[in-house]
Amino acid sequence: MNTERINKVIENMRARHLRQIIVSAPASVYYLCGAWCEPHERMLALLVKGDGTLTLYGNRLFALNGAVDIPLVEYEDTDDCVAALAPDVLPGPVGIDHTWPSQFTIRLMEKRPDVTPVLGSQPVSDARMIKGADELALMRESSRLNVQVCTRIDQALREGVTEKEIQALYNRIALELGAEGPSFTPLICFGKNGAEPHHDSDGTRLAPGDTVIMDVGLIWKRYCSDMTRTAQFGEVTDEQKRVYDIVYAANRAGIAACRPGVLMKDIDRAARKVIEDAGYGPYFTHRTGHGIGLDVHEFPDCSAVSDIVARPGMVFSIEPGIYLPGRFGVRVEDLVAITGDGCEVLTGA
Amino acid sequence: MNTERINKVIENMRARHLRQIIVSAPASVYYLCGAWCEPHERMLALLVKGDGTLTLYGNRLFALNGAVDIPLVEYEDTDDCVAALAPDVLPGPVGIDHTWPSQFTIRLMEKRPDVTPVLGSQPVSDARMIKGADELALMRESSRLNVQVCTRIDQALREGVTEKEIQALYNRIALELGAEGPSFTPLICFGKNGAEPHHDSDGTRLAPGDTVIMDVGLIWKRYCSDMTRTAQFGEVTDEQKRVYDIVYAANRAGIAACRPGVLMKDIDRAARKVIEDAGYGPYFTHRTGHGIGLDVHEFPDCSAVSDIVARPGMVFSIEPGIYLPGRFGVRVEDLVAITGDGCEVLTGA
Repeated sequence: MNTERINKVIENMRARHLRQIIVSAPASVYYLCGAWCEPHERMLALLVKGDGTLTLYGNRLFALNGAVDIPLVEYEDTDDCVAALAPDVLPGPVGIDHTWPSQFTIRLMEKRPDVTPVLGSQPVSDARMIKGADELALMRESSRLNVQVCTRIDQALREGVTEKEIQALYNRIALELGAEGPSFTPLICFGKNGAEPHHDSDGTRLAPGDTVIMDVGLIWKRYCSDMTRTAQFGEVTDEQKRVYDIVYAANRAGIAACRPGVLMKDIDRAARKVIEDAGYGPYFTHRTGHGIGLDVHEFPDCSAVSDIVARPGMVFSIEPGIYLPGRFGVRVEDLVAITGDGCEVLTGA
Repeated sequence: MNTERINKVIENMRARHLRQIIVSAPASVYYLCGAWCEPHERMLALLVKGDGTLTLYGNRLFALNGAVDIPLVEYEDTDDCVAALAPDVLPGPVGIDHTWPSQFTIRLMEKRPDVTPVLGSQPVSDARMIKGADELALMRESSRLNVQVCTRIDQALREGVTEKEIQALYNRIALELGAEGPSFTPLICFGKNGAEPHHDSDGTRLAPGDTVIMDVGLIWKRYCSDMTRTAQFGEVTDEQKRVYDIVYAANRAGIAACRPGVLMKDIDRAARKVIEDAGYGPYFTHRTGHGIGLDVHEFPDCSAVSDIVARPGMVFSIEPGIYLPGRFGVRVEDLVAITGDGCEVLTGA
């Protein structure tokens, strides 16, 4: 277990008046205990109390025995898993991990009517949001490899290749370079598919004149990278060039706004303003960015409603885009790490 | 939307005295509405009321508008998503999807103290558990392709190859054959790694004398397959052969027990008894099987505590195993579909 991180979480619990929390996200459990466990539909729960008591509850199949140095309660598939945890919860409010499947929260409430579930991820999210030097080193390497793979798939773009083929190529090269795998299903979008920010790559074939969005990331020693590059295949129209230039300028403006003390919503504003001023405001349909680390989406949120203040060690994306329905889309995404006086761009040139 | 399935769900709600349920699992929403949406950390909710009223709530980024023919309420990233749903929920109990992240259930309770969340997946799970003829056709094809890919990775086993390489090969061939992808990360285990039922494939190299477990599945038109084969690389010891024969006999005994009217726990018993009688009971550490369909794990559970009665259209795995810590493991898994008078094995020879 990581005592420094646990102490930070307990300090954060105190600040938020939480006497106890249930941590369940695999990345959060790993962050505190050093063991990674994907529970799928089974129950994983780390009960953290304000007095520093920690207990981990997991299925015997997870093979956590010996892998963690905190008290472990194991259950079997034929046991009532919530019954293993319920007696240990204190009466009153219990902070619940955002991601814990509702079935466990509801079954806990049924067994313990004296316990009230409240939102409870924040003490761990707040800690995870500020990366230590060891984490930053891993995130740099994750992004360095991602840039390498992205360069290689860019070189593989040729007429008639399908989105699915480029997607599979990304996955293959990422594994070859030693990554654990992609951090999300690569989003490869040709032509008008790029106008859907969350298009699922399919059998669409690359044709001359297509704008190509490549939104890709990988996992290196548990840490995620994420980057988007937009390329033009063949001739470029004046409009395609203009839209690209605007999005690129918005990306640069967002990055330029990144320094300690700035509100996340002001960073969002800096990027968004460039696109609005150019008349494309309605076509930038999502937030400017998201935090990243052990999960590909985590805190801080970089959106118009985020009052989080940038602090050294925060890592997040700056990814403005313009999406012209039925025609094409452009997105340019980099990862930045807030430093003592500005930011470091992790995703290279 | 699929009226027949929705009517079945409403009938199931009535049987379980649920006036309203919130469906959120992507596979369940697809099953009822015909649109597949992976919400990741965002909110997806289908509110189904006993009077047949359906409303779907989703982020505008999901692009559900036009993709579904039921009333749709869209929210933006900067909106309070739960506020879009909360006013439409009726006072009293609301059935909540097992998998809905707790943050949404808790935020709903905060906004609507007059609403009580209860477990609510069962009406949809009960419907999904009985596959229609159209679904069975897709599941047959999914398994047929899985057998093909498995045969090809079996031929690629050679001294020095790593688990990760065989895993990547499975993924590549599955895509080549037209699958959407693997239905779970392929579990490729060499030698003593096979003694951990949930071993993560790594850089372990294949060596003569190794027992090899290949637990693999793919997705074909949304339907999952899943199969485990255990092979022997090079010479086989008497014990390896004996353990394999016992597990294979347990698999056959489980399959032989599959017919309408039998309790799932009795099917589990039939397979487990073979292993217990041979003296290896303590080394068969998991349930005999799990249902499969749009999700790789769904109802019915085939375990010692499952009182579900086998009915025509149910599809589940029969996967007994013996795991000898530090030495080797054997698992043999097939998928069966219950028919009018017995079962059909989907996973070939």
